[in-house]
Amino acid sequence: MSLEQEIRAIALQGKAAGLDLMKRPLKQLDEALLAMALSLEESKGIILTANQIDLQEAEKRGISGAMLERLKIKESTFQSMVEGVRQVVGLENPLGKTIREWSRPNGLKIKQVRVPIGVIGIIYESRPNVTVDASVLCLKTGNAVILRGGSEAIHSNRALLQALQTGAKKAGLPEAVVQLLPMTDREAIPLLCRQEDCIDLMIPRGGEGLIRTVTEHARMPVIKHYNGICHVYVHEKADLQMAERIILNAKCQRPGVCNALETLLIDESIAPRFLPQIVQALRKNQVEIRGDLSTQQWGGAEVKAASEEDWRTEYLDLILSVRVVKGIEEAIAHMEQYGSRHSDVIITEDSGIAEKFLNEMDSATVYWNASTRFTDGGEFGFGAEIGISTDKLHARGPMGLAELTSYKYQIFGSGQVRA
Amino acid sequence: MSLEQEIRAIALQGKAAGLDLMKRPLKQLDEALLAMALSLEESKGIILTANQIDLQEAEKRGISGAMLERLKIKESTFQSMVEGVRQVVGLENPLGKTIREWSRPNGLKIKQVRVPIGVIGIIYESRPNVTVDASVLCLKTGNAVILRGGSEAIHSNRALLQALQTGAKKAGLPEAVVQLLPMTDREAIPLLCRQEDCIDLMIPRGGEGLIRTVTEHARMPVIKHYNGICHVYVHEKADLQMAERIILNAKCQRPGVCNALETLLIDESIAPRFLPQIVQALRKNQVEIRGDLSTQQWGGAEVKAASEEDWRTEYLDLILSVRVVKGIEEAIAHMEQYGSRHSDVIITEDSGIAEKFLNEMDSATVYWNASTRFTDGGEFGFGAEIGISTDKLHARGPMGLAELTSYKYQIFGSGQVRA
Repeated sequence: MSLEQEIRAIALQGKAAGLDLMKRPLKQLDEALLAMALSLEESKGIILTANQIDLQEAEKRGISGAMLERLKIKESTFQSMVEGVRQVVGLENPLGKTIREWSRPNGLKIKQVRVPIGVIGIIYESRPNVTVDASVLCLKTGNAVILRGGSEAIHSNRALLQALQTGAKKAGLPEAVVQLLPMTDREAIPLLCRQEDCIDLMIPRGGEGLIRTVTEHARMPVIKHYNGICHVYVHEKADLQMAERIILNAKCQRPGVCNALETLLIDESIAPRFLPQIVQALRKNQVEIRGDLSTQQWGGAEVKAASEEDWRTEYLDLILSVRVVKGIEEAIAHMEQYGSRHSDVIITEDSGIAEKFLNEMDSATVYWNASTRFTDGGEFGFGAEIGISTDKLHARGPMGLAELTSYKYQIFGSGQVRA
Repeated sequence: MSLEQEIRAIALQGKAAGLDLMKRPLKQLDEALLAMALSLEESKGIILTANQIDLQEAEKRGISGAMLERLKIKESTFQSMVEGVRQVVGLENPLGKTIREWSRPNGLKIKQVRVPIGVIGIIYESRPNVTVDASVLCLKTGNAVILRGGSEAIHSNRALLQALQTGAKKAGLPEAVVQLLPMTDREAIPLLCRQEDCIDLMIPRGGEGLIRTVTEHARMPVIKHYNGICHVYVHEKADLQMAERIILNAKCQRPGVCNALETLLIDESIAPRFLPQIVQALRKNQVEIRGDLSTQQWGGAEVKAASEEDWRTEYLDLILSVRVVKGIEEAIAHMEQYGSRHSDVIITEDSGIAEKFLNEMDSATVYWNASTRFTDGGEFGFGAEIGISTDKLHARGPMGLAELTSYKYQIFGSGQVRA
């Protein structure tokens, strides 16, 4: 079989599994999840051995510490992975829920109800726990899933998949409800992107190169999980102690994630007062600061010069770009020009200004007096998240179970015809 | 300027207009719509003259009756077009509406509110009234729009656009809130499809070739308005008089539209009784019938033989394919294999069977005892419709104003940071 034929076969099996899943009772989906948790536990030895192979091969290829760390399934990672599966069983299922219902003058009753999307393709990079997390969330919502993990995690992913499929089978579901591309060829991604008659949605989670490949080739809808160039704007009427607390938390608590702060905007009216304070606090936390001329002027010698490129950069590190702006309009204009509309914050005690910001700034999440770090399915109370959408269609911001569903209209008549 | 540069300039102007629109009060959007209605009336002479040019050129190129008819702006078309604009002003605006709100244990208040999508690209074929209808619905929901009409309607569309832009300007909005590609080059569509940093959503409305071009090239989300291969399944416990009434309505009331019936499935238990009745009724209404062997057996000499291709065909004409099936499972399997999941009906007096069909058949609209012809924004009570989505992401089935919006999360804090 050619690579193209292999991918086609996987897509067609996914489609059949997706159609099958739509007819299963919710109880059976949960049973499958429980069987998967058990099967993972039973396969622990095999999975950790497979992970060792990936780690050894990665080391041979000279892969660095941070990436090795992400690849590694530690004892605690394994436990929380299995625990995560069982937690999803306990979540309320959005499937079958009525979104709204109404009646028409002709007597037709219309019900809009949640249904599975069908088949979801998930393309991701190193972390093998995504194999389990994504599969489980898709299955809970009645979707078949086709996974494509990073080549460096292929042994771990294959072992995890084997355990998941064993669980599905034990619960009476077809194995193909969860599939993983077994090959690591680069060309597999564009080929997968052309199976639009079988795959209903593609979710790429990874770096810019991966996202670009998927958006260029995909003929089905794509929900991107892209970068977060997040801003905090300190307004002239800000509580400066609160501002410092929020900025430090947003920048330093976990700098390597998409909802970490990357650019700080400070109103010119308070810059002379606030800049010395915040520069000192940031430097105490090992944050490198890159500022515009005014920031350098008020912030002192610790502030390096920012280039135009800095405003567009997601550092994912202890680096912060800082700019002095003139009022809220300039702050919003900066965010619109350079940001990624992920998570943006205003700090102010003026509720009118806050309202203006919350209404006019078009980001997935806009905050008044809180840290960007709350953009997260768990923090939102969703119980689980498949990721954070940087798109505006279908799902925006943290994606929970409901965002993994579509809907249909059920229409109840008594012989109505159109006049 | 090259074609590529021209398209880029239009896309960038659209983006700027979209950002501007997000900050306008809803009142101003309605004022713009009213100014557009007035401007259309004032430009009536120019518009009808431009339409004459299109009609003459179409006739010269030997374009046929049905297409000429769709191209023509009749006196009544013009009136209802203008009236349509004023009706949209009266519709409740979904923008700014809270979809849901909740509080977290840490005191954060989260509000999910409706916002514009941004910039919407609409690619359509001959009917020039789409130029007005689509623009008005997009503007009502705060979206800038970039239109690409059929080349055969270019003079009409340019004149209509001129009037719309004059109206926008009178209400203090930038002209670029409504733009039309002024060129008719085929290559303009793929170029437009690559402006993913400026255009947030592409809606193609037209034939298979157009849809395929857009899905292949688009890097932004696409919501397809594609074909309707709609089914009626007559269950063994159907009221056969009701079945006949619904089938005739679904097939004959307006055969050229996407929610018209294309395939009739009859349960084998009632085929000997129902087929002679329905064949006679359909033939009386000039419907050509193409059936499988059983249909030919029970339906008589009037039934032609159906080919495999017939089950996949959207006739948009007075032709109906008919098949005898064994029970609801086979009916659903047929719809899943050959249908387009647009609008599918079961006719039965058995509520348990109806429920099974409504739950298991995954179409945008599934009906119990009613005609497929109700799949329509107006019939749903949406007040207006941009079309009928055949996709499952973001919007499925009839798309009203709410489906032309996205959402964002507004988060109200008091200094919360993440632990």
